[in-house]
Amino acid sequence: MPTGSHYSRSNEQQQMDAVVIQASGPPAQSLAYRSEPVPEPGLGEVLVEVHAAAVNPLDVVNAAGLLGTPLPMIPGGDYAGIVVSDGDHAGQEVWGSGPALGMALGTKRPGTHARFVTLPETWLSRKPERLTMTEAGAIGRSYFVAWQTVINAMELMPGETILITGGAGMVGQAATAIARWRGAKAIVADRHRPDGVEHFIDASSSDIREAVLEFTDGRGADMALDTVGGALFEPALRSLRFDGRMTGIFSAPEPKVRFPVAEIYNRQLHVTGLASVFMDGADVARIFDQLRPLFERGFLAPPAVKTWPLENSAEAYQTVLDGSAGIKQVLLPTGGGAQGRSR
Amino acid sequence: MPTGSHYSRSNEQQQMDAVVIQASGPPAQSLAYRSEPVPEPGLGEVLVEVHAAAVNPLDVVNAAGLLGTPLPMIPGGDYAGIVVSDGDHAGQEVWGSGPALGMALGTKRPGTHARFVTLPETWLSRKPERLTMTEAGAIGRSYFVAWQTVINAMELMPGETILITGGAGMVGQAATAIARWRGAKAIVADRHRPDGVEHFIDASSSDIREAVLEFTDGRGADMALDTVGGALFEPALRSLRFDGRMTGIFSAPEPKVRFPVAEIYNRQLHVTGLASVFMDGADVARIFDQLRPLFERGFLAPPAVKTWPLENSAEAYQTVLDGSAGIKQVLLPTGGGAQGRSR
Amino acid sequence: MPTGSHYSRSNEQQQMDAVVIQASGPPAQSLAYRSEPVPEPGLGEVLVEVHAAAVNPLDVVNAAGLLGTPLPMIPGGDYAGIVVSDGDHAGQEVWGSGPALGMALGTKRPGTHARFVTLPETWLSRKPERLTMTEAGAIGRSYFVAWQTVINAMELMPGETILITGGAGMVGQAATAIARWRGAKAIVADRHRPDGVEHFIDASSSDIREAVLEFTDGRGADMALDTVGGALFEPALRSLRFDGRMTGIFSAPEPKVRFPVAEIYNRQLHVTGLASVFMDGADVARIFDQLRPLFERGFLAPPAVKTWPLENSAEAYQTVLDGSAGIKQVLLPTGGGAQGRSR
Amino acid sequence: MPTGSHYSRSNEQQQMDAVVIQASGPPAQSLAYRSEPVPEPGLGEVLVEVHAAAVNPLDVVNAAGLLGTPLPMIPGGDYAGIVVSDGDHAGQEVWGSGPALGMALGTKRPGTHARFVTLPETWLSRKPERLTMTEAGAIGRSYFVAWQTVINAMELMPGETILITGGAGMVGQAATAIARWRGAKAIVADRHRPDGVEHFIDASSSDIREAVLEFTDGRGADMALDTVGGALFEPALRSLRFDGRMTGIFSAPEPKVRFPVAEIYNRQLHVTGLASVFMDGADVARIFDQLRPLFERGFLAPPAVKTWPLENSAEAYQTVLDGSAGIKQVLLPTGGGAQGRSR
Repeated sequence: MPTGSHYSRSNEQQQMDAVVIQASGPPAQSLAYRSEPVPEPGLGEVLVEVHAAAVNPLDVVNAAGLLGTPLPMIPGGDYAGIVVSDGDHAGQEVWGSGPALGMALGTKRPGTHARFVTLPETWLSRKPERLTMTEAGAIGRSYFVAWQTVINAMELMPGETILITGGAGMVGQAATAIARWRGAKAIVADRHRPDGVEHFIDASSSDIREAVLEFTDGRGADMALDTVGGALFEPALRSLRFDGRMTGIFSAPEPKVRFPVAEIYNRQLHVTGLASVFMDGADVARIFDQLRPLFERGFLAPPAVKTWPLENSAEAYQTVLDGSAGIKQVLLPTGGGAQGRSR
Repeated sequence: MPTGSHYSRSNEQQQMDAVVIQASGPPAQSLAYRSEPVPEPGLGEVLVEVHAAAVNPLDVVNAAGLLGTPLPMIPGGDYAGIVVSDGDHAGQEVWGSGPALGMALGTKRPGTHARFVTLPETWLSRKPERLTMTEAGAIGRSYFVAWQTVINAMELMPGETILITGGAGMVGQAATAIARWRGAKAIVADRHRPDGVEHFIDASSSDIREAVLEFTDGRGADMALDTVGGALFEPALRSLRFDGRMTGIFSAPEPKVRFPVAEIYNRQLHVTGLASVFMDGADVARIFDQLRPLFERGFLAPPAVKTWPLENSAEAYQTVLDGSAGIKQVLLPTGGGAQGRSR
Repeated sequence: MPTGSHYSRSNEQQQMDAVVIQASGPPAQSLAYRSEPVPEPGLGEVLVEVHAAAVNPLDVVNAAGLLGTPLPMIPGGDYAGIVVSDGDHAGQEVWGSGPALGMALGTKRPGTHARFVTLPETWLSRKPERLTMTEAGAIGRSYFVAWQTVINAMELMPGETILITGGAGMVGQAATAIARWRGAKAIVADRHRPDGVEHFIDASSSDIREAVLEFTDGRGADMALDTVGGALFEPALRSLRFDGRMTGIFSAPEPKVRFPVAEIYNRQLHVTGLASVFMDGADVARIFDQLRPLFERGFLAPPAVKTWPLENSAEAYQTVLDGSAGIKQVLLPTGGGAQGRSR
Repeated sequence: MPTGSHYSRSNEQQQMDAVVIQASGPPAQSLAYRSEPVPEPGLGEVLVEVHAAAVNPLDVVNAAGLLGTPLPMIPGGDYAGIVVSDGDHAGQEVWGSGPALGMALGTKRPGTHARFVTLPETWLSRKPERLTMTEAGAIGRSYFVAWQTVINAMELMPGETILITGGAGMVGQAATAIARWRGAKAIVADRHRPDGVEHFIDASSSDIREAVLEFTDGRGADMALDTVGGALFEPALRSLRFDGRMTGIFSAPEPKVRFPVAEIYNRQLHVTGLASVFMDGADVARIFDQLRPLFERGFLAPPAVKTWPLENSAEAYQTVLDGSAGIKQVLLPTGGGAQGRSR
């Protein structure tokens, strides 16, 4: 195993600590913590030592076998770390999220829940200096998904109102923070009110549409980000003003919902989704380039984090599966020392 | 009543022939043919003598009382005619479609199913010289709706494939013609095959999705224009490729449909509608300005037309209500002479 | 003269204090302070009592007779005030800038350098509560021009670099503040460094292109806002990266500049201008609607202001003409009391 | 040398006929016709047998040594041919233009003026069946440049007017044809009138602006495509209406032109260029995918062509250099047989 960032190529195959999905199932059964060969960067690729890597619901879904990933596979998409291979990027502190790392889709690349990962150079984005490795590793998927939907797809403008279903989740929190910076009003609908949220709707007890109309003086929301899917599709849709827009980030295939098509057609709504795993890694890196100055200047702040050593990954995954109450679970593959370095 | 285009202002109120919705109901009961005062153009408006004016399904819906229009009201949106008031536009041959003429919405302006109509100057578009008045009056709503959805909203590009549900209807025919000019492939789904359509799906007997996949070598359609609503919403949606787009032009409020939200979210579809009655009349006029050169050069051709004198309007409306088999029903408010001039 | 906001319609024509351009020339000769009839709002218009109204270089140019405005004319475009006519907006505190108020263009409406002004309802935007009338009246043209160019036309994104020529001027300051909020890097080129500017180029002594390349590690700026015109056109153009974009807000017609067309064509630059006086007043109001939440939340802050009673307008105009060193000159038509209320 | 399309891999290195730039200079000195190794397709690449390949001015400039291409190099960007390597695309007839083939830029790939060329799979576009190989090989650069500027960058709409400087050249002809299909009016400015052009300005004798104003009833052109550069920059710019747009495709670095910046800034013009050699090859292939149905349906027609065997390339290049009067010079690397097949 390489020690620290003193990685040196030699004829003998280097080994590293890694999490591996070895079978489909709940985290305790599916995930192994074991020694794996350090991957070799190919042409146009770099080797990154991973200092922090968040666990996302998508990773849990992947470990559960729902994405058809061929096993064994190192999971994980998010990361903050240091480029340890030679070349133009050597020594750079980087952050980001590989959209389909550790999955069956696209290039079938091993993921970031390991000491090292190889990445295409075009996927690299410099880490904000203001963030520790742990903080930078906690941004990942939740922020690029929030940015892609709220800014790039729906083009939220200052003064607009956005309804965020499941707003207490990590993507919802990221979207709320982005909306606040953007000068927009965020209305969060969820089962509990996240800290610091001004406009909250209790999704388990309120009529969402009625509540949105009240918050908007009867106009309806300009847009909605639906992070929940099925059950809140129709209420979110009906909360929009004429010509409003809505993006969903995932919905389970079942059950079907019943809704009136006339809502979309006659009220000229714009409904779409984001299949983030099919995004191009270089495009995702450009989103992190845009997020960087906003974190540097304090317009955006990292979420609350709970850190785990790599060997406790199964427990971290289980925490995400149980619902992590707005706290990001972050693995630290370089061990306790890294945690110390993180702040 | 003014004779011909010899319209002169005088102190005595001029009268004109007009169709009037006097009660809600089927055409024979709701529509009266009677003498009405010639409207006075206001500031920035012109008076147009209507030579031809198509009857659209929306007019039938309006006469049936489903749009809440205050009665009595002169219905009708489409027109081809001549500006007979003084000013910059005097004598111009114009064509177009007022998006909410003869309806309760917006300005509550009387419609075009009369000898004269007043229109804002900004709504005017010069008639193509190549088309007769009758032909020009038959373009109207079906073409601006097809253009707004297919070109402006979905941006159909050469080489793309578009599924058109209800493609045998007038909007469907217009969309098919526009797609052909655009260098795209149009697949028409309906209960009978319109003349000259190459790619046809019998919507009453076929599995639409299967048929579309066959026409597209398994890729799915790039976009869909749904002119039917409810029943074909899900099949049209499922016929789209990943990241495909769909626009509907109207759906009855009931019944609700059942469909999997995951279709939209996880396959990143883009679904919207066009509420054409809320479009700005000047924007609609700019669409007719774009259609003009395409008719002048023969890239687009007017539909088959059946003409009616104004006094037989109820019969013309009933024909539209019964399903007019791809033939446009056009009123000729200036009488038989106009018909002679039309071709 | 109406007193305070107690404006009441009566048969006798109300009078008000106003600035009037009575002849073309330098401020002391062209501007009169005198009593004028209070304007009557037309259909769809409101009467606004002006509490604060900035003087812009455009007003000075207008008073000098360079815009061909028919005289006499009340000048002034910016304003903050209160709607004093009856109707939906009665009592509202509003702010904004009429793009061609007090000028020959378009509707030839009298301007805001008077106690009262009539405005179309669609031009209204609610004043941010956080700003005093004086502060709100100081935003006006400089901010909507900066927003229209930097955000709407060039779409500045976080992490990008913008060169602002004449960056010490009021539009330049506004653009710098907007860029900072946006998470972008602003490089200011001018003859003196404004307070708080991090990246400054002395335009009178430095090679602008060299300096920009240094600030951007050799890449060049992503975009430029040229508020100077002629002399800095080519240096700004040459400071851009390949595929960069540039917008100018005004240039004197003479002298012509010499420059290599190849710069634009072969480096794929995007060069345009903003003719702000031709913007639609309702569109401008939507910009103020977007600026409002950014001032409310403190992302943007009003400039340093020097206030003047209306009778000293000629002096205020002269101060703008002399170069006001980054301080906004604001007229207070409601007198000293308003100044006290302002903070 | 492989014979016909019977290309077979073997241990011995295959040879092919090719044109090679061996020194910078006029065609007769710089170009050699000789035997070269058949290139080996790499991962994700195919081998294409070239049946027809146009000579463009860019190739002549390249052979003259003005682009800094490292020598020796096989030049040529355009092609029509057949995929002769194994794999998904084997046997496909393809057409297109590699944006920087045979040049120093980007990947330094050898060009198409040879019997065989390797291309990335993502660059492939199926040849229209309606065109012969010779015709398809003549479309290339002139059409993708015209499409990228007129359709993608400037978004020409039906009813608009476009001024095309140098409109008798190959790009100008392509742009004129595209404009006609689009339902727009093309005004060609050049030194001689190409066949079939309706609106022509003699650029050597007329005042271009005056002539454009006459063709447009005083409104000015909506857009301009400047294929000439320097000398016609200002006249083209001044022919545009307020808010008009202009794109140039190349200008020699010298001489500088003098022009009033106020033209761009105060009239809100949009001026840009296309650096086509930096376009992505896959994006260019998507343009050919869009051109295909327009040629299949006869909306666009191939230009007049003069064909040359590969050994006479220097003569073909010289013809382009001398000015080829609207006739496309096309090389036929597969020899006379191909010519016979072409028509």
